[in-house]
Amino acid sequence: MSELANGWIKKISVTPPSLKDNTADVERLENALKSVINGEIYGIDPVVSEKLPELFRQNGFSLRCVLFRDRKKWHIAGIAGNGDEIIAGIAADLGTTTVVLRLIDLSDGRTMGECSFGNPQTSIGPDILARIHFSEKEDGLAVLNSLITEGINRAITELCRSCSVSPSSIYLISLAGNTAMTHLFLNLNPRYLIREPYIPVINRPGCLNARELGIRVNRSAKVFVFPNTGSYFGGDLIAGILYSGLNRGDKTAMLVDVGTNAEVVLGNRNWMVACAGAAGPALEGGVTKMGMTAGPGVIDRVSFDKETGLFSVHTIEELSPVGICGSGVIDLAAALFLSGMIDIRGKFVPGACKKRLIEKEGTKSFVLVPGSESANGNDLSITQADIDSLIRSKAAMYTILETIASYVGISLPGLSTFYVAGTFGSLINPRSAITIGMMPDLPEGTYRSIGNSSLEGASMILKDSNLIDEIDRIRDGITYIELNVNQDFMNRFSAARFLPHTNRSLFPSVG
Amino acid sequence: MSELANGWIKKISVTPPSLKDNTADVERLENALKSVINGEIYGIDPVVSEKLPELFRQNGFSLRCVLFRDRKKWHIAGIAGNGDEIIAGIAADLGTTTVVLRLIDLSDGRTMGECSFGNPQTSIGPDILARIHFSEKEDGLAVLNSLITEGINRAITELCRSCSVSPSSIYLISLAGNTAMTHLFLNLNPRYLIREPYIPVINRPGCLNARELGIRVNRSAKVFVFPNTGSYFGGDLIAGILYSGLNRGDKTAMLVDVGTNAEVVLGNRNWMVACAGAAGPALEGGVTKMGMTAGPGVIDRVSFDKETGLFSVHTIEELSPVGICGSGVIDLAAALFLSGMIDIRGKFVPGACKKRLIEKEGTKSFVLVPGSESANGNDLSITQADIDSLIRSKAAMYTILETIASYVGISLPGLSTFYVAGTFGSLINPRSAITIGMMPDLPEGTYRSIGNSSLEGASMILKDSNLIDEIDRIRDGITYIELNVNQDFMNRFSAARFLPHTNRSLFPSVG
Repeated sequence: MSELANGWIKKISVTPPSLKDNTADVERLENALKSVINGEIYGIDPVVSEKLPELFRQNGFSLRCVLFRDRKKWHIAGIAGNGDEIIAGIAADLGTTTVVLRLIDLSDGRTMGECSFGNPQTSIGPDILARIHFSEKEDGLAVLNSLITEGINRAITELCRSCSVSPSSIYLISLAGNTAMTHLFLNLNPRYLIREPYIPVINRPGCLNARELGIRVNRSAKVFVFPNTGSYFGGDLIAGILYSGLNRGDKTAMLVDVGTNAEVVLGNRNWMVACAGAAGPALEGGVTKMGMTAGPGVIDRVSFDKETGLFSVHTIEELSPVGICGSGVIDLAAALFLSGMIDIRGKFVPGACKKRLIEKEGTKSFVLVPGSESANGNDLSITQADIDSLIRSKAAMYTILETIASYVGISLPGLSTFYVAGTFGSLINPRSAITIGMMPDLPEGTYRSIGNSSLEGASMILKDSNLIDEIDRIRDGITYIELNVNQDFMNRFSAARFLPHTNRSLFPSVG
Repeated sequence: MSELANGWIKKISVTPPSLKDNTADVERLENALKSVINGEIYGIDPVVSEKLPELFRQNGFSLRCVLFRDRKKWHIAGIAGNGDEIIAGIAADLGTTTVVLRLIDLSDGRTMGECSFGNPQTSIGPDILARIHFSEKEDGLAVLNSLITEGINRAITELCRSCSVSPSSIYLISLAGNTAMTHLFLNLNPRYLIREPYIPVINRPGCLNARELGIRVNRSAKVFVFPNTGSYFGGDLIAGILYSGLNRGDKTAMLVDVGTNAEVVLGNRNWMVACAGAAGPALEGGVTKMGMTAGPGVIDRVSFDKETGLFSVHTIEELSPVGICGSGVIDLAAALFLSGMIDIRGKFVPGACKKRLIEKEGTKSFVLVPGSESANGNDLSITQADIDSLIRSKAAMYTILETIASYVGISLPGLSTFYVAGTFGSLINPRSAITIGMMPDLPEGTYRSIGNSSLEGASMILKDSNLIDEIDRIRDGITYIELNVNQDFMNRFSAARFLPHTNRSLFPSVG
């Protein structure tokens, strides 16, 4: 790949000092950079000053500087000789459950490697709420902070080893996470995030020193942390919007990140509104339960052949099936509904299900994969309770989408693009989601799965220095709506608790 | 003392957060400060972010902020509640031989205590040159850096204990030192300071984090390091000029700092030129040998009664005499010259010295205090070699003063004020210095001894935030002159090697 046009590496050469010009090395560097960046360097990291004199003299007063800009503040993230040493960066998606790191060559933007690991804070609590409560114990915050920073350090070590790169070659880290994870990473008290009026310690962490955050990479490396719009709308979503390009579109689009919560952004180049599914108690155990963990052997796709009446399943890594994840459940529910095995309320229809419907300890279950075909010999089945839960989830999701659209006076069918972000989201078959009325009935080409958009947004920042202002424009341009669970909301929610919806005209494509 | 009008402590109150305004704590603080400082905070120290949420809520969202400004960059050096906890700062004179710290209450500017200690780097080498050579060994710089930072830490601990203040109450440190000491304190490679073309690593260290420099005070405390004009004109002199007010004067004045070297500034509010005595080889062992160490029992003043022909001496702390320091030697030489006991070349006149002149191992000595009156039973005497050395020193000093004055076309008698800075300088009797032709023959009221002006300048910065720009104006306004040891210089030097001078008309007041 050729050199990045708008990368963060700038080559400079200075006139060597003489008796007639005894300007100090640091000021000489600053002056040279001033003309390159058309701006001013904000304070030089002492670590850079320490290295500068010998590096200048060993390289004939020509260097490569790794810069970073945060608003008007230019930082020097590091200096290196004019040889071919690797200058790398790391983009990070700091998820509540999973953390993903991507190693990027800052000279050409090439991805050198990627790794993901379970967030080690899961040992304290699976969800953010449990961790925030833990942080209020003595040393609780320090424990949580150390778990995540040391987890990242271990992953960096391994990633670097597998790519034959030294951690000291990493000069920039771009990190996107939800507001709570960002706080725990920055060692900031998260307790007011979950208490009315839900106040973060910081909205815009900006550019920080890696070494001060306990991250072991180059000693002068900088960490850019994506800003948040509030306690429930974090930097991961800002990064996702950046990646989707929703904020640059002429036509109005919607972005839904279906992770532990459902976060929704609606807008175009002129305006954006956003809301998060965690806002109302009606949604607790609603949207949140859908994001079941996918893994090897887990059924992620289910299809039904009307002719033969047979279900076929696809498992992750195509192993013998061990369970069903969220996207599989959505496919299954859609198939059950289309084949008449569940009714519009989602209740099993025994006459249609026939022998697949069994009853154990008073609970009705639909057997998708009999024990004889599963990995562990147990039937893989879905209970009435599972389907009831799915229907609450999908109803909550659709209600949120409807509510935010009606807030700005837009009808869902008018959307130009519907971006689905997140690992879970990327597994969902839009056709199934439409069939059960979880997502609006848009032409299938309108749906665009954008995967880990948080990681992609974080990566973009490392490759194109011109994008840095766009992050602030996105953050500042979002109007965050608190979802009020009022009568209107509850009416919508009730109407959405049918398959696909009480108002069938909203889903004309569903047979 | 009443509250400082232009101090660094600013009180702020913010509107408590609400559901209608969920601005994060940090941004709330920044917004409040914006209106107080009429500027922008440049990045918040993570340590401040960590403390902020609880401090806000424990103090009804009203705080005292310790700010610092460096050019356009405002820093938060710390935050404290609205109670009466001490908020203190430390002014430091980082001398090659002696370090002096002053603890100042930042709310009212009161000096709470002061302490001085021998620079622990003396164990490596008494002078800067030896230390710089040591710094080039493996780990040499780290050793030197740790000696000075740990020395300062110990002194801070003791100073704080004696003043019943916790080191965590110290939020600002203002530090002035010569360029080499500044580099060693900042852990910056000093090797190019002493090699042509004499390039510092940094001219303007600005405002740094105390914790990053290894200084154990409040965790968010900032250290302001006075800038230098080059390798031989350091922040101690910039601080000295600030304290003297030379840069604000309508009339042209001169400032001489007589320490290990002699550094000279000449100018007024419109211009300043400066030079340092270490610049030429002719001065080696010249000016440098004069700054002999004063201490208890050391003779610092000598007077002579023409009537009785008796010398009387004054010792530091008025103890029995143990030796003679530089200012005593100058007094003695002046008395010997006025009484005819040395001639205009500084040679002993046996007929005038009489029995006080003795000869030991071929060396002539003048006994000032006989063994019977000294603390250790030994004669306290001055040798011909001592006087020869003094004459070289004083000639070097006068030549520097003459050279810089002629550079700008000013005659020394035209000076409005002659500031003498430095501990040694403050002990010198101007009358004696004039008599031997070391300093120009100005009316005695023209001389002003300003003591440790480096410490005083560093203190001023902690008390008056308006002065911070003046430091840059001083630094940027100085034209530094390399003393060229050319024929002209050597002619002047030769002419000055007589008492008081070959040209007696330059010293009309000397009888």
